[in-house]
Amino acid sequence: MRNIKLVIEYDGTDFLGWQWQPEGRTVQRELQSALKQLLQDTPKVYAAGRTDSGVHALGQVVNFKTGQRLDLHAIQAGLNSYLPSDVRVLSAVKADERFHARFSAVGRVYKYVISKRQRAVARQYSWFCKYELDVSLMKEASQFLLGTHNFQAFSKRNEEESHYLSRVERLHWENAGDELVMEIEANRFLHNMVRIIVGNMVDVGRGRLSPVKLREILENGERMHAAVKTPPHGLFLVKVNY
Amino acid sequence: MRNIKLVIEYDGTDFLGWQWQPEGRTVQRELQSALKQLLQDTPKVYAAGRTDSGVHALGQVVNFKTGQRLDLHAIQAGLNSYLPSDVRVLSAVKADERFHARFSAVGRVYKYVISKRQRAVARQYSWFCKYELDVSLMKEASQFLLGTHNFQAFSKRNEEESHYLSRVERLHWENAGDELVMEIEANRFLHNMVRIIVGNMVDVGRGRLSPVKLREILENGERMHAAVKTPPHGLFLVKVNY
Repeated sequence: MRNIKLVIEYDGTDFLGWQWQPEGRTVQRELQSALKQLLQDTPKVYAAGRTDSGVHALGQVVNFKTGQRLDLHAIQAGLNSYLPSDVRVLSAVKADERFHARFSAVGRVYKYVISKRQRAVARQYSWFCKYELDVSLMKEASQFLLGTHNFQAFSKRNEEESHYLSRVERLHWENAGDELVMEIEANRFLHNMVRIIVGNMVDVGRGRLSPVKLREILENGERMHAAVKTPPHGLFLVKVNY
Repeated sequence: MRNIKLVIEYDGTDFLGWQWQPEGRTVQRELQSALKQLLQDTPKVYAAGRTDSGVHALGQVVNFKTGQRLDLHAIQAGLNSYLPSDVRVLSAVKADERFHARFSAVGRVYKYVISKRQRAVARQYSWFCKYELDVSLMKEASQFLLGTHNFQAFSKRNEEESHYLSRVERLHWENAGDELVMEIEANRFLHNMVRIIVGNMVDVGRGRLSPVKLREILENGERMHAAVKTPPHGLFLVKVNY
């Protein structure tokens, strides 16, 4: 059995997220269907990040095991011929037999794209924020999130989690023309964590929440401030590190 | 009567182009419908460029006359509230009474985006070209198109045209990561001109057509080489100059 690692890109617009569901279109379901057609086999497929409905991926990583002897280029090209146009396999490589897309990952990079203006072209790939934002305040507040913290106040409650610790390695804001992009790298992301962080940061940028208050919320671990969870279509899983 | 000039952006994916048609969704139809709702009036709307089905616009310019006294900001915001999300009014200004979006224009800028790789995200906004392209050859060939020429060999035959002359002011290629972008500015664009030029340039880049042969085709005014017309979803009307 070979353990195959794929890097895949998808447009989350028309998907109910990564994970297979009994009803509805998911990326995992499309990928499993393409694998079945290509390999005449139904391997289990694991992904580094279980992206939510509407969230995009530029570099999602998945793995599966197969006894089929197709070469790697044929696997990539074959899957792309069976997959719909909103999912693309960017690469296929042979991985170590112990490699697991989710459990072997040591870090993930997400970005969130805020559009400063209404747009028609590429409107699926950013969230329009109608407020003037003070980016220097947002950068100041971002510093408090760096390092290891309990992110309970910045994630959706989830009974399956044993803890809410995450180590944020990097949190960077970039003003790029009419877009404002947050890139965040962490060893682990809790459910809705990026979108809740962005919602809080937008409130900081609007002057509704001070950077110091944001630090207090982080330290207390309670949602003392009702920031919005920003919508999924601005969010991208950029990269997974191993 | 005020003469109002709008700059509009649209995603051509779900449109049969700019121009009103008895059946089917067009940008002009959507804009006229929004104007009717906002102004209780049905002014004629003129556009600088009649983009084809599937072609996008970042800076299409239109004008219409109205006796309604709504202020300009209310016209922009009001239209955006009635328009579907794939059309946005970027600005509304009062123009000189003789201003005509099409006939007053002195130049138009289009760009064509070629993607060097298959993609899922933003696949609606570029054309994937699977061939290796020699961009230096394409730049060499592009020089021959600068200036005033008869572009009959690079446009669709059209009985309504009295001539096929166009003055190309600028034709620029930019390698931007995994995209290759052609930007072209001319006083006038003939039907399908940009897409036929790009098709020929791709053949130059692939080595199927020499730059010198391309010049010969231009000078002869005949389609001596059957280059493909590249698909519409890589094409954008960027800007109109007055």
